[in-house]
Amino acid sequence: SKSNEPPPAPPVVHYYMNNLTNTRTPIENSETVLILTPLAKFYQEYWDNLLKISYPHDLVSLGFIIPKTKEGNAAYSELQAQVTKTQSGPKTKRFASITILRQDTESPLQSQSEAERHKMENQKVRRAAMAKARNSLLFTTMGPTTSWVLWLDADIIEFPPTMIQDLAAYDVPIIAPNCFQRFYNEEEKKNDIRGYDFNNWIDSPTARDMASKMGKDDILLEGYAEMATYRSLMSKMYDPQADPGTKVKLDGVGGAALLVKAEVHRDGAMFPPFAFYHLIETEGFAKMANRLNWESFGLPNYLVYHYNE
Amino acid sequence: SKSNEPPPAPPVVHYYMNNLTNTRTPIENSETVLILTPLAKFYQEYWDNLLKISYPHDLVSLGFIIPKTKEGNAAYSELQAQVTKTQSGPKTKRFASITILRQDTESPLQSQSEAERHKMENQKVRRAAMAKARNSLLFTTMGPTTSWVLWLDADIIEFPPTMIQDLAAYDVPIIAPNCFQRFYNEEEKKNDIRGYDFNNWIDSPTARDMASKMGKDDILLEGYAEMATYRSLMSKMYDPQADPGTKVKLDGVGGAALLVKAEVHRDGAMFPPFAFYHLIETEGFAKMANRLNWESFGLPNYLVYHYNE
Ligand SMILES: Nc1nc2c(ncn2[C@@H]2O[C@H](COP(=O)(O)OP(=O)(O)O)[C@@H](O)[C@H]2O)c(=O)[nH]1
Ligand SMILES: Nc1nc2c(ncn2[C@@H]2O[C@H](COP(=O)(O)OP(=O)(O)O)[C@@H](O)[C@H]2O)c(=O)[nH]1
Ligand SMILES: [Mn+2]
Ligand SMILES: [Mn+2]
Repeated sequence: SKSNEPPPAPPVVHYYMNNLTNTRTPIENSETVLILTPLAKFYQEYWDNLLKISYPHDLVSLGFIIPKTKEGNAAYSELQAQVTKTQSGPKTKRFASITILRQDTESPLQSQSEAERHKMENQKVRRAAMAKARNSLLFTTMGPTTSWVLWLDADIIEFPPTMIQDLAAYDVPIIAPNCFQRFYNEEEKKNDIRGYDFNNWIDSPTARDMASKMGKDDILLEGYAEMATYRSLMSKMYDPQADPGTKVKLDGVGGAALLVKAEVHRDGAMFPPFAFYHLIETEGFAKMANRLNWESFGLPNYLVYHYNE
Repeated sequence: SKSNEPPPAPPVVHYYMNNLTNTRTPIENSETVLILTPLAKFYQEYWDNLLKISYPHDLVSLGFIIPKTKEGNAAYSELQAQVTKTQSGPKTKRFASITILRQDTESPLQSQSEAERHKMENQKVRRAAMAKARNSLLFTTMGPTTSWVLWLDADIIEFPPTMIQDLAAYDVPIIAPNCFQRFYNEEEKKNDIRGYDFNNWIDSPTARDMASKMGKDDILLEGYAEMATYRSLMSKMYDPQADPGTKVKLDGVGGAALLVKAEVHRDGAMFPPFAFYHLIETEGFAKMANRLNWESFGLPNYLVYHYNE
């Protein structure tokens, strides 16, 4: 249906929240996963990898929120074509349900080039808009049977088919793989990889000190030379020689790929679109979860790859 | 169904958020309302008044969250009996859908007597638990078609059948009627009324000053002599001689009866279970909404009544 009419609902549904588990063996326990993707641009590789996940698709629901921009319209058409194909294809590949939201707010920044959106002066307004988009998507799609929420950006074009199980096996409230990017290394004349997402970090005394001196609406940003925080970035911790399963405790997280136990969100942890302890969006989310006594972790040697423009 | 199985979902649903209005004429625009009630004790008068609301029931969904206590079990049975009766009764009285959540966390305070739950030392832990219950209910039941959320406590036993329309007509993001209580005035030997909910207030310099000197996890509470805030309480503003439609801007709100545009929650406004600007739960919600540029209002002369134990 293309309308805003609510689907016919059963008169009464009872849910026992304590029957809703999230364990290190989610498939065995038939735990449902909600994969949430803010989507401004559609990448075929993202969808292809999504289809390849080995988590039973009938336990997986998808939710998208797409901006009301020209680029968003294009992404919407491309997504719709793939969704129709998948949901009318082989039963085992079909997802339990798919919700697509078209944003009602104008996008604050029309240009979405990597250079433009990473400019420091554009970050606060852009990340506040991203935070609101994530919150809208979350509040609107999470249901009484959701056990896990996997945040997965639309430009994550390579990730293992077992990612959900792999991350869930750590049995922690919030966990992020390390988000890298492939590139051609001009100096070494070879294909190479580098860290992409700087929002997965361990806090530093410098950053805390900077925060303590800021105005109440000011935010700390990571990855800008003019604002050196000396935080320990997970993107710098990758070591192909080390234990691939190594886990580190994080104070800030990114949303590119992030598995969250649904109860963390249910307690109220969302993506602050305002300065929260001088943090915003996904970094603010980690801090808010922390205030709710939920811990965040990262896997420095478990890589997923971001598209390279 | 009594299980935790998800109801059969349509394969794909598209929602255009800009088609989702919340206007001063919600019935004409077929806007859906989600009534959310944290429920520890069932009052027949609450249910009877709920059945009497003149907002079309097929546009109204109900959501309850009930604690895992002995009292909660009793409330659950009583609710269930009424729900079954209503949903199998005349079609025009049936609600669009009803979701009942049983909490998985233990209630921090078993005794629910008015005196006990209002003790100052019990407030922080109790209100943090209430905030989490409200968040769970909200995150779990709000859907893509929800236009309005009406928070309504289970012990609000008198309210006008036109309350939703009356409040919506103000076309403001957040609006609270004045929550009173009937009692027998021993001095004047007659039935009388008095203010009950002290969480609807306009901030004061004293309160701001107290907050500025507090530890980061400390919260301000309203209605305690040992912590005089000199805030202007809406419960003190009731004037039966004055314009019944008077509206005042509020800085803190209560949750006993509160109409919220769904987009306020979608932006991320929830009930902080931690000190947020030294405020918690519904009062913290008003502050958080304010950080998101949504304003709160109250109607001092529009009364609803809380049960008197
Ligand atoms: N709904 C929505 N999604 C967006 C918007 N801008 C970007 N996105 C998506 O949100 C995710 C993160 O944004 P992106 O620009 O890639 O952030 P970056 O990689 O951290 O610079 C990607 O999946 C984008 O497609 C927006 O305005 N609205
Ligand atoms: N789910 C849930 N609801 C509760 C709990 N405690 C109280 N309630 C309900 O939450 C609402 C507000 O609580 P109440 O004790 O009346 O607060 P007060 O009137 O402000 O003192 C009422 O509808 C209660 O029935 C609890 O532990 N869990
Ligand atoms: Mn990206
Ligand atoms: Mn009460």
